[in-house]
Amino acid sequence: MRLRKIPGAVVRRLPLYLRVLEDATRDGDKELMSSQELGERAGVSPALVRKDLAWFGEFGKQGVGYDVNNLKAELRRILHLDRDIPIAIVGVGSLGHALARYFRRRYAADPGFHLNIVALFDADPEKQGEVVEGLPVESPAKIEERTRELGLQMAIVAVPAEAAQEVVDRLVGAGIKLLLNFAPVKLTVPEGVHIINADLSLELQRLAYYLRD
Amino acid sequence: MRLRKIPGAVVRRLPLYLRVLEDATRDGDKELMSSQELGERAGVSPALVRKDLAWFGEFGKQGVGYDVNNLKAELRRILHLDRDIPIAIVGVGSLGHALARYFRRRYAADPGFHLNIVALFDADPEKQGEVVEGLPVESPAKIEERTRELGLQMAIVAVPAEAAQEVVDRLVGAGIKLLLNFAPVKLTVPEGVHIINADLSLELQRLAYYLRD
Repeated sequence: MRLRKIPGAVVRRLPLYLRVLEDATRDGDKELMSSQELGERAGVSPALVRKDLAWFGEFGKQGVGYDVNNLKAELRRILHLDRDIPIAIVGVGSLGHALARYFRRRYAADPGFHLNIVALFDADPEKQGEVVEGLPVESPAKIEERTRELGLQMAIVAVPAEAAQEVVDRLVGAGIKLLLNFAPVKLTVPEGVHIINADLSLELQRLAYYLRD
Repeated sequence: MRLRKIPGAVVRRLPLYLRVLEDATRDGDKELMSSQELGERAGVSPALVRKDLAWFGEFGKQGVGYDVNNLKAELRRILHLDRDIPIAIVGVGSLGHALARYFRRRYAADPGFHLNIVALFDADPEKQGEVVEGLPVESPAKIEERTRELGLQMAIVAVPAEAAQEVVDRLVGAGIKLLLNFAPVKLTVPEGVHIINADLSLELQRLAYYLRD
């Protein structure tokens, strides 16, 4: 049960902290990390690290730092990444295909990753029946049925802009409440549905800052 | 000339602010926006919006808000997105292909986007000579030559993990100082080179927070 509403900006930073901790443990057996170091690696101030984590409890010891493995486990629990999440991709064009490949391979290499793509849908009859990364591409008409069967909890929308609203309506109608949208269009969803609009250009735009004048 | 070192976390938020302003002008002719509204739409506090922008000058008028078009132009200038940036993609697998398609189409639809993919490289001889989104796929052996000819300033690395360091060394050797890496591996670059490690899973991990317990 969530007792308080956590600001979206805090939630946005939690996966960054988790990534820092995972990188640190992959590189060696780091046991402790200060908020200073965690902040530096995540690109935020140490004070903000402490403030963000304080929303969820007391994790660090003053003057000692965070227990890396413990904080990693807590973040995974908070983010619900301590269990498998069955996810669908709708739209198996080049982007949907790339995402299927990326996530399926990452999950295969590390089941602890938990983001599990289990269904692919595409409206193009020529694509239906094709097998991509071990999964058949199915008709969007099967979204409701497959959501029930597979317990789908999230969907990635990678269809063209003009098809996106219809796809989203169908996903929401099937009971999927968490959506990651790559179509370059603003979509309408009912209350209780979370939609994140991904923008592949943000990182390149950030990089452009460092161009020499 | 940059007189002060701007924190990376501030730079990270600038493209978010720019996106909010662009969405606002696309939806209608919004002329003014308060730091409250800008913060809400970008997922940060109004105080942080004001603090971030204060690094670069005085943009808002107290009690009036920001002039949307003016702030948009200033952010584009600060991010060097007021001119074309010639970019290469190395690795034309499904991800490189998807990125080429996404960026080439976005640029074609809006040249003011300025992120201009102009060269594609892939080590697979079978892919070389293929034309993807209007661009020939070339051998990585041509990176130095094409960097000079095209004035390449950035590169997107979308090769398998085991090939990434070699590709990055070659890009850096050719004089490219800004790199966006999608390979799931930590890469070493000399001082003065900026590398951002993209992680396609961050947004899904953030979304997972909103799963019902």
